[in-house]
Formats: sequence, C-alpha cells, structure tokens
Amino acid sequence: MKKRYLLAPGPTPVPEAALLAMAQPIIHHRTPQFSEIFKETAELLKYVFQTGEDVLILAASGTGAMEGSIVNLYSPGDEVIVINGGKFGERWVKISEAYGLKVHWLKVEWGKAVNPADVKKLLDENPKVRGVLVQASETSTTAAHPIKELAAITKDRDCLLIVDGITAVGVFDVPMDAWGVDVLVSGSQKAFMLPPGLAFAALSQKAWKFQETAKCPKFYFDFKKERKNLKDNTTAYTPAVSLIIGLNTALKMIKEDGLENTFKRHDRLARATRAAGAALGLKPLAPEAPSNAATGVFVPEGVDGGKLVKYLRDEMGVTMAGGQDHLKGKILRIAHLGYVDTFDIITSIAAIEMALVKFGHKVELGKAVGAAQQVLLEGYK
Amino acid sequence: MKKRYLLAPGPTPVPEAALLAMAQPIIHHRTPQFSEIFKETAELLKYVFQTGEDVLILAASGTGAMEGSIVNLYSPGDEVIVINGGKFGERWVKISEAYGLKVHWLKVEWGKAVNPADVKKLLDENPKVRGVLVQASETSTTAAHPIKELAAITKDRDCLLIVDGITAVGVFDVPMDAWGVDVLVSGSQKAFMLPPGLAFAALSQKAWKFQETAKCPKFYFDFKKERKNLKDNTTAYTPAVSLIIGLNTALKMIKEDGLENTFKRHDRLARATRAAGAALGLKPLAPEAPSNAATGVFVPEGVDGGKLVKYLRDEMGVTMAGGQDHLKGKILRIAHLGYVDTFDIITSIAAIEMALVKFGHKVELGKAVGAAQQVLLEGYK
Repeated sequence: MKKRYLLAPGPTPVPEAALLAMAQPIIHHRTPQFSEIFKETAELLKYVFQTGEDVLILAASGTGAMEGSIVNLYSPGDEVIVINGGKFGERWVKISEAYGLKVHWLKVEWGKAVNPADVKKLLDENPKVRGVLVQASETSTTAAHPIKELAAITKDRDCLLIVDGITAVGVFDVPMDAWGVDVLVSGSQKAFMLPPGLAFAALSQKAWKFQETAKCPKFYFDFKKERKNLKDNTTAYTPAVSLIIGLNTALKMIKEDGLENTFKRHDRLARATRAAGAALGLKPLAPEAPSNAATGVFVPEGVDGGKLVKYLRDEMGVTMAGGQDHLKGKILRIAHLGYVDTFDIITSIAAIEMALVKFGHKVELGKAVGAAQQVLLEGYK
Repeated sequence: MKKRYLLAPGPTPVPEAALLAMAQPIIHHRTPQFSEIFKETAELLKYVFQTGEDVLILAASGTGAMEGSIVNLYSPGDEVIVINGGKFGERWVKISEAYGLKVHWLKVEWGKAVNPADVKKLLDENPKVRGVLVQASETSTTAAHPIKELAAITKDRDCLLIVDGITAVGVFDVPMDAWGVDVLVSGSQKAFMLPPGLAFAALSQKAWKFQETAKCPKFYFDFKKERKNLKDNTTAYTPAVSLIIGLNTALKMIKEDGLENTFKRHDRLARATRAAGAALGLKPLAPEAPSNAATGVFVPEGVDGGKLVKYLRDEMGVTMAGGQDHLKGKILRIAHLGYVDTFDIITSIAAIEMALVKFGHKVELGKAVGAAQQVLLEGYK
C-alpha cells in the first residue's frame, strides 16, 4: 500500500493527460494522421527551445543527441574544449574522444560554474578550437554554467557553443537564438514531463555550416537526413510514436502555462528547496550557481548518504538521487523539474526530515517544511 | 499545470493497480471468466467485512444498500430507532419514512457519539422496536458511534442492529460476526479505494429471518434474489463489470497488507491529522469519539470555511470537505481513508497552513506538519 513519489532529476513524473494520450491505441507513423501530430509537435518544440531553427526529434536518450552533436559537426582530429564540471561534462569528453576529436579539458570543481574568462583564455591560447561543449545544468552537481556569457565569447569565432540542455530546456531561460547558442540538446524525461526515449537537438545556421564539412562516421544520428525528413513531417527511422503523441500533449501544457510561468515555477520550487536545505543546516553543493532543475546538499556528518537515499526510496517510497563518483554517499539531490508542484517539494522535504530523524540526526520536524512553504506561498494569489 | 489531490471523505484516491485493472477491455458478465473473478471478489469481501455471511454486491451508491437494508427487512408500520447524529443518520430517517416505517428518533448532538444507555432505555420503553439504525462512522460529523456496545444491547432482542459502515468498513475494526452486527453496508468509493458505483450489504442469519416476513415493496434491491444469484457467482441485474474487476484488485491489496495493518495505518493517519489540528489550534468537531475516516475541525473565528474549502480546491488543487447544514462554512473535514499515506496527510496539513496564512490567520508554517510527522514516523522502521 506504499505510494511512490518520483523526485529524481529524471525520469520525472508524467502528467495524467500525457499518460492517457500515450495509452491510446498505437497508430502507424507513415500516415497523414501521424504526420499532422508530428508537424504540430515539431512547431511546439521550437517554442520551448526558443528558436526559429528545426528541432530534430530522435528515438534515443539524451546521450544520443549529444553524440549526434559531435558526429554531425566535427571530423576526427578537430579540437574542442570541454567544460568538465561533473559526470555529464565527462560524457562530452568520452564522446569526443570516441570519435577521435582532440579535447582540451577545462576542469571545473564539482558544484562550481565555469568562469567564462577561463574559457576565453583557453580559446585565445588554442585558436584551432572549433567547439566549446558544456552543460547548461550539470545534473550530477546541480550547478548551472553561464551559457549567455559563453555564447558571447564563441559568437564571433569559428567555433560552436554546444550546450547540453537536458535538465535546462523548459526549466530555466536558455534562449538559443537570442543568445547565439549553436547546438542545444535535451531529452524527454526531464522538463518535457515524459518517459525517457526521445532526444532533441536544435542547430544554429552556423552549426549547419559546420555540418557540411564534418567527416565523423554516422548513420542513425544523421542530422542532415533527419532535417530533410522533418521538413516532410516525419523521421528518417521509425519514430517512437506513443512518446511523440505524449510529447504533443506535454508541450501543449507547457505552451498553455507559458514558458515564462514555467521558468517562474521552477525558480520558486528551487528557492523553496534551497530554503529548506538551509533550514535543515545542510550545506549546499552548488551555492554560487545553483541550477533550478535540482538541489544538491551534503548529508550531515556521520550519515551515510547512500543508505539515506535507499531508506527514502525503499521505506518511504520517495525516490531521490544520491551522489556519483567522489560525491557518492555524501550528497542528496532533490529534483524540482518537470511536472512538479508545491506538494512534491513539501513531500521531499518532509521525507528528508523524517528520514534524518530515523538516522539519528537532530531535526526539528516541520521547520524545513515551513521554510519551503514560506517561498511556495508566492505561487498563490 | 496544477496537480490535484483528492482528500475528501469519498470519493477517495484509486490505486494505480486498480485503475489499470479497470482500464482493461470490458468482458461480458455472463461468462465463466467473469464468474471466476466475481466469486473470488465475493470471498475477499467476506474477509474485509469480517463475516462468514454472503456480502451482496450492488451496482448502486451506498444509499442503495441502506435502502435495501430497510426494504428487505421491514414492513410498513414496523418500528425502528434511528440514531441521528448527522446527515447520514438523517438519511436512515428519510428512507425509513419513505417506506412507512415508524421512526423513533434518537437525536445526538453533531460531533458526539450516541450513549448506548440511551438506546437501551429507548428500546426498553418501546418493546415493539425491531431495528436500531446507526452509522459506524458518521461522515458528516467525523464521529464514530459505539457499535460493539450497541450490538450487545440488540443481540438478545427481537431487534436488528443495522449499521451504515460506509466510511467504517476497512477503516477501523467492525467485526460483524464477532460483535453481532445484523446488517453492515458499505460503498466502493471509501476504504475500498475505488470509484463510486458499488454498494455492499452483509446480513446476519437473524437478519435473513427478518427478510422472510418483510413486506416493503422492492424490485432492484431484492436481497433474497441477489443472494440466490451470488451463490451462482453472478448478480441479479447487470453488474458494474469494470468496478468489480477493480474491486478484485483493491481487495487483494487490502488482504496483502492485512486488515490489522490497514486499521493501524488509518489510526496512525488519523492521529497525525488530529495532532496537526491541535498544533494549529483548531477545535476538533468530534473530540470524544473521533472516527479514523476523517477529522473535522472548526475553522478559526473570522475565517469563512466555505471560502477556505474553495480556495484549497481551486487555488491549491487540494480537495477537502466542508460542513453541511448548520456546520456549513464552519468546519473543514480532512479525510484519511482508503489509498492514503503519510505524504497525503502532509500535503493536507501543509495546504491548510498555507491557505490559513492567505486568509490572514496567524500560522507558524510547518508547525502542524511537524506535529503530524511526529506521529507518522511510527509507520517506519
């Protein structure tokens, strides 16, 4: 009889309307019926990506769109800078190296945001660099990198800014066209409020120019072919039909609320969570540049973070994320992106308070919930 | 993007497993396939009703089973005592009078439980009385009547104890056979965790004797006919097929948890809610004999309870119940029956705290949540 609450930074909860849309009998993808839904969905994606460019829809996890961003824009031996401040920064390194790119690492302490001046300096020192790869929101550390400032640096160079917006698009403002982001990728199971299975990628005109000369081998993630098919309201290979139908519903929900309100909601939920963390005396993982997607906090001294996450999930039914690599067992990541509202945050915080009591930590029950409530009240008239 | 939380004393939330079971393609009711499910369901119902007798399954709301309990057991002119301490006590009066029974009112102040001595006295004074009609849990006042004590009084008389257990069966202990309850009725949308649409009625051997001579007119609610059909694993009229399939799933969930654990869970949730009400300084509606199905509290002086319920529902997405008749606008009823757990209670209490702030009431945010958490912690190892 235990209820389950999904409060991890992806997959995120799926709204009932999207679940019901996906539960409809499957339709064939080479039909006018599907093409119409696909066309409308592709248009709605542009709204959320804040771009006039095509947003490619791939049957893949977000990593597929990351890989596509490398293989479609570069050739073996090309040089790129990777801003590596967490697990997903590392992923840019691994993909680039798998295809023979030369990677300049820009290591950033986990939980910190990159200093744009460091990127500028590295670019100045390495004029052959043709790409800067970064996360808008580094999910593993809950820190946000300064995309606007980075775009200002790459804009007038023969160099692309490639942004993993997997836990950023639809969470906070990353206006691709306005800022001059060259590639923006995301995935369905985050702010798009869907199950995993779809990846998205949008390319600037400058990026499409890079595409023309890129020689990395590719077949499934062939962006040129996908763009051609997108113009015909279809995909190169079999699309994940039900997920796209769910996406259509979810995007309409986002559009109806409006992007601005969506960003405000995420900001409010994030600030409420941070206030609760502070009330609990838990040290934040990314105090200077926190992402609005998730809040990382260090677990108290003497508490095993791994056991805490397991207790929350298995005993209390509340799934959150712990830490990875050197943060394993040391942190708790409380997600607040996607189909999440006031009472999800309250559930998270109340569960953490109660679990900490069970772990022998001194907690004044309700205090952190109260700190969150104070912020969450802003959401009501 | 507003999420909705159903925390009224019925309908109550439906578990995902039951929703999925009911979403299956409909099957025909005159088939071995359905009969098998029906048979198993009827057996499981006996477990929850704590009886060896048949539990009739009707396509009706709970009121249908209440009406059936009158028309199948009495004749016009028969005398009954109605313990009338709320809206549902009144319903017993109205049904009895609609069929020409002579009703002895035993008025109980709303929020109070009946004093068994008063029932005994009224029975002694009116030896022709052949039935005592009562609610185990009076949903409108959140008070529980002392069924065990009443059964001890009616047991050795030519008089039935007819109990509306609509918000009691599966919530707290009403062991029908052990206590000597003669009729116990309930409905699907309460502790049975289903949508509305099914009513249940179980009759003691003594009650079935009454049935033999009862002359009230009836057709749809003909219990004798239903019992005959039940023995053949079917119903007299078309059963609500999908609800019965959902019931099968829900009853298995209850059985798996065990009745004792189910009662314990409801008791813990109820105590947590009462503790939160006390922490908020809200006067309880039924302090002496509170039901574990829902907790009624008076809203603070100067707060319009009707507007508060509307605000909670329309602005915060949290549906609770207000008061009826002379309690209209004065109380709030927080439900905690059925598919409800720790975080539903926390959601309720946090929402009330926040709404009261919006209504200008002085509230220390998180304090009542903390009081609830303290009790709810008992549920975890």
